[in-house]
This record gives sequence, C-alpha cells and structure tokens, in this order.
Amino acid sequence: MPDSNRRFILRNRPVGRISADTFELVEEAIPEIQAGEALVRTQWISLDPTNRGWIREEPTYLPPVAIGEAMRGLGLGRVVASRNDAYREGQLVQGLIGWQEWAVVSDAAPLLPVAEVPGVSPSVYLGVLGMTGLTAWVGLKDIGRPLPGETVVVSAAAGAVGSVAGQIAKINGARVVGIAGGGEKCALLSERLGFDAAVDHRAADWHGQLISATANGVDVDFENVGGEIMDAVFARLNLRARVVLCGLISAYNEADPPPGPRSFINLLVQRARLQGFIVLDHFDRMTEAVTELSGWMREGKLEALETVVEGFEQLPSAINMLFDGANTGKLVLHVSD
Amino acid sequence: MPDSNRRFILRNRPVGRISADTFELVEEAIPEIQAGEALVRTQWISLDPTNRGWIREEPTYLPPVAIGEAMRGLGLGRVVASRNDAYREGQLVQGLIGWQEWAVVSDAAPLLPVAEVPGVSPSVYLGVLGMTGLTAWVGLKDIGRPLPGETVVVSAAAGAVGSVAGQIAKINGARVVGIAGGGEKCALLSERLGFDAAVDHRAADWHGQLISATANGVDVDFENVGGEIMDAVFARLNLRARVVLCGLISAYNEADPPPGPRSFINLLVQRARLQGFIVLDHFDRMTEAVTELSGWMREGKLEALETVVEGFEQLPSAINMLFDGANTGKLVLHVSD
Repeated sequence: MPDSNRRFILRNRPVGRISADTFELVEEAIPEIQAGEALVRTQWISLDPTNRGWIREEPTYLPPVAIGEAMRGLGLGRVVASRNDAYREGQLVQGLIGWQEWAVVSDAAPLLPVAEVPGVSPSVYLGVLGMTGLTAWVGLKDIGRPLPGETVVVSAAAGAVGSVAGQIAKINGARVVGIAGGGEKCALLSERLGFDAAVDHRAADWHGQLISATANGVDVDFENVGGEIMDAVFARLNLRARVVLCGLISAYNEADPPPGPRSFINLLVQRARLQGFIVLDHFDRMTEAVTELSGWMREGKLEALETVVEGFEQLPSAINMLFDGANTGKLVLHVSD
Repeated sequence: MPDSNRRFILRNRPVGRISADTFELVEEAIPEIQAGEALVRTQWISLDPTNRGWIREEPTYLPPVAIGEAMRGLGLGRVVASRNDAYREGQLVQGLIGWQEWAVVSDAAPLLPVAEVPGVSPSVYLGVLGMTGLTAWVGLKDIGRPLPGETVVVSAAAGAVGSVAGQIAKINGARVVGIAGGGEKCALLSERLGFDAAVDHRAADWHGQLISATANGVDVDFENVGGEIMDAVFARLNLRARVVLCGLISAYNEADPPPGPRSFINLLVQRARLQGFIVLDHFDRMTEAVTELSGWMREGKLEALETVVEGFEQLPSAINMLFDGANTGKLVLHVSD
C-alpha cells in the first residue's frame, strides 16, 4: 500500500502531440476525508481520444482542464473509507476519477457504483460494459439504426468503440466493413470479430479497397476518425444514409482545424442525416445497454478486446498510443488491484 | 400565337459558369399530340440553383440532362389541347416542363394540376405556393423545428427559399438572422420582411456582423450556400443545433468540390443534427404546406418576393443571375400569358 498519492498535473497545453512537459507527476499525501466524503483507491484509468480535447485552450463539451489541475480522466476504483452514506467500503465505483492514485468523492464530485458481474475483469466496466460500450450501443442502435443487410462502415474499427460498434452491427444483421491501420488489425476484424470486410488505411490502395468493400454503397458511417478517410466514406453514401459522428481523432492533435470533407455535398445529394453525439448525454441508456451487451458477451457473440498498460507513471505516453493506433480494443492503464 | 416551338438544347457541359455555348436555341414545329397526350403552352419557367447540378457529368439526385436533350426545368403552363382524360383544355399544370415553349405531357411524363387561387399570379405557384414554398416549409417545420426564441440563421436569405424560410421562422416565433449580399438586400430583410438582423456577406466585416447578430449562438442553420459562410455559422452552433442542409450554391459552379467546413468538428462537440434534403421527396407535404402558406399570405404575414425576367431567349443568362445574387426572392422567367 503506497503512503503517498501520485497525480499528473497539467502544466503546458500541448501543440500537437502530448509530450514530456505536458504533465508533471507530483507526489502528495493521501487525502484525509471529511464528513460527506469517501476515499477511493484508483484501480484502472481509461484512455480515450477525447482526453486530448480536454486539454486544449478552447472549451469543448466540458470546460478545459486548467493549468495546475490534475488531468481529468475516466477511471475505476474501490472505496477504501467512507464518511458518506452513498458510498460503502469495498464498493467499486467509476467516473471522472482523474489521473491520480487516490480520489476523494463527495456529493459535489460523485462517482457511480458499478454493478459487478462475476468473472469479469473490472477493466471491462470502462470498456464494453461501460462508457465505451454505451457509446457504441447508442451510436449504432439509437442513431445509426442499420436495417438487416445494410452496409455499415466503421472507422478506427479495431479501436475501443469501433470494435464494439462493428460487432453490434453484425449482431443486428448488417453487413459490416471496418477500416483499420495495418494488416494485423484487418485480420483481427475479419477473422476474429466476423466483419464482412476490412480496409487497411495504411495500404497504398486503401481507397480501392474501400470501393470494393462497399460495392453497394454505405448506409451507415460510424465515424471515429474524420479527415480523408471520412471524406472517402462520404463519397460512398447511399440515399438516406446515416452518419454517426462519434469522434474525429485525426483532428485532435492538430493546432488548427483541418478542412472538412470535400464530399460534404453528398450529404445533401443523398439526403443523409448526420448526428453528432457525446456519450455523457446518454447515461439514461446505460442500464439497457449494459444488460444487452453483457448478454451478448455471455452468449459469446461479443468480444471485449483490450490493451493494458501497466503502471501509473506510464499515463502520458500511453495516451499517445491512441493517436499512433498502437492499441487494439479498449486502452486501459492498470494502477492497482 | 407562335407557330414554332423554341427549345434550349444542352450542347456542352459548362466548366464553371453557364456560357453562350452551353445551350443551343432550336426552333421546331409545335408537336402534334397523339392519343394519351396533351399539349401545354409554357407560361413560366422556374430558375433554380439545382438546375446547374443537372447539367454536370456526374449524376446528382436525378440523372444528368444528356447532351442533345432539351434542358430540364420546372415550369408552369396551360393545357391547350388534350387527348388524355387526366388533362382538360384550359387547365393550369406544373412540373418538369423543360426549357421549351410547348411541352407534350402523357402518363409517362406527367405534369401536376395547379389549384388556382383568385388574385394570385401563376408565377407564385412556382414560388411560395409551389416547390420553393414547400422547400422552405419542410426545411423549417419538419427538419429545423426552431422553438420560439431560438436563433435561426438563413443563408441566401433574400433568395427564393431563404426569404420564405426566414419568414416562416419569424411566424413561428424564432429570432431570425439573414445572411445576404449587399446593403439593399439586408435592408429588405430587416425592414420589409421583419428579420431580427441581417448580415451583409459582401461587407469587409461580415464575420463580425455574424458574431454580433448571433450573440446567443445559432440553434438552426437553414443552409443554402456552403463555403466560408456556412463554416462561420457552424462555428456559432449551439448545443443540439440543427442544420437544414437545403443547398450549397457556392459549390455548384466549381469544377472540383471545394474543401468542407473547418468547423465540421463543431457538429460533434455541439451534438448537432444535420439533415440533407431534396424537395422532390416531400410532395406528400404539399397540400398541408400550401394551405398554411397561402393562409399566411392572405393574412399579410408572408410576402411572395419575385424577380421576373421577360423572354424565353433570356433563359441561359437568367440562370446565371442566381450565382451573381442578382435576384431577390423567386427568379422566374415569363414565357407567355
């Protein structure tokens, strides 16, 4: 049991990639809890592309993390002491725990209890049975709504949300095309996750691969990437296509926003519907989503892929793995058991 | 009464603007009708930005007009002879009459009867009480759905669809900001049509004008233009904004599609919904729309602006007026009484 609380404090807003001077690792005393508070020992921290947006100068859907504040981050931990009736010792909780080894929760800064399922690693509550799964589920089932036989294209398809979104689309009877970087990820999509086709965006002929894989056009674009990949998918949209605008990771490290898609006009010509969404707005769907997702996991229809990085001090380098495409499935950092 | 039928035949697909060699004016005999056909004398031809898309090489939402074919165009005419029970002499009809002084209609190439309202110029059935009005009405009422007090921005606001969309938004209690080219059009919007603010996109400080006029952000963007104007509006979108993607006139004369909006990411951050639409899909709403629109006209709440060009032979130059912003309200060409 450590006797100090390590935290990553935001020191400099990065231009481009997160670098060694973006965060400072500080060591503080483990906080003493007051009446109304509980102390949580961090076990897992979720690494998400959206983290990068939170440390920009400009507000996104949340205010920017201030210089001098602990980095914001989703995570999972266990209550070790409580002076708040809403939390009991031993309880597993999740939410914006921050990049710190210990967190103080209160009614003003709450965490949500996790309904533990026997035999499931706690990290899965940050992945398929948590925000990631909810994101994929809401995007596919509430927004994209593919009909059986329709073609769904998922970008960053071997990533956390993409791998789940593609599997949900398959379970719902759609034809699923995944776009991912490299032959290994493409093989994973086709062979292990049952995608109908995979497009390797690192291959010279990726555009030709996309055209072959979407010979009947694209009915749903589950968009996680943006940039020229999204542009090429927009050019393939069918009449009344739906664009589930979930993420634009290709833009997150850019100082200035890149130009939008040249195929934008296709949204008009094809009467497409594009819906931006942020999972924070959809917590009311969590119970239903997790019930369905855990059912599919039990039935062996849905695989929970994850990439685990060990060690709290690895957080700043681990986050860049997302932008290098170095992870497969959910990227989580293991802090403690 | 002329004894010949003049028609504009597509000869060359324009690169950029429509020019003198795009169409050829040919003179033919007035067609003799066969059993099942009716002969229509063209009275008015509607000039619409979408016409430009129809003569591109690439299909849009309709197949391209073929080289050697009469130019496609919406219009209005009167049946002068009929050997088809669905058409009677003297009846006013509208639809894809083409750029020709006489048209043969049949069950294979039908036109729709117009329910004439006393005291209304027939040209209005091509404008507020026709496709143009339906476009604005569907875009605002079915797609944009502004709540009272919300801010609606309309681009090309002094144009055919824009001027109606803005007025409908006002009637529904929204705060309406119009974007138009030049002080005269802006004065028209503010003073005659009752818009709450007008932004002159030809002024050096147009961007500042837009920011001032949308101090509380933008809830609905009724988009007719695209390009940097749309980009600037996207940057002002509020949470859960709606983008009614009706037209992108700034792109229609471009050989290659221009880059999309740099503020595209704002569709994600603000959880915006963007819906492309083409009025042809919404004819089922025509009766309801025209009933409501004509009621507002009678009550003096809705003004039907139009710019009339006289003379069939003016069609190729008249169409370019749309791209120069030379029209106010609906642009129609008067062929005959």
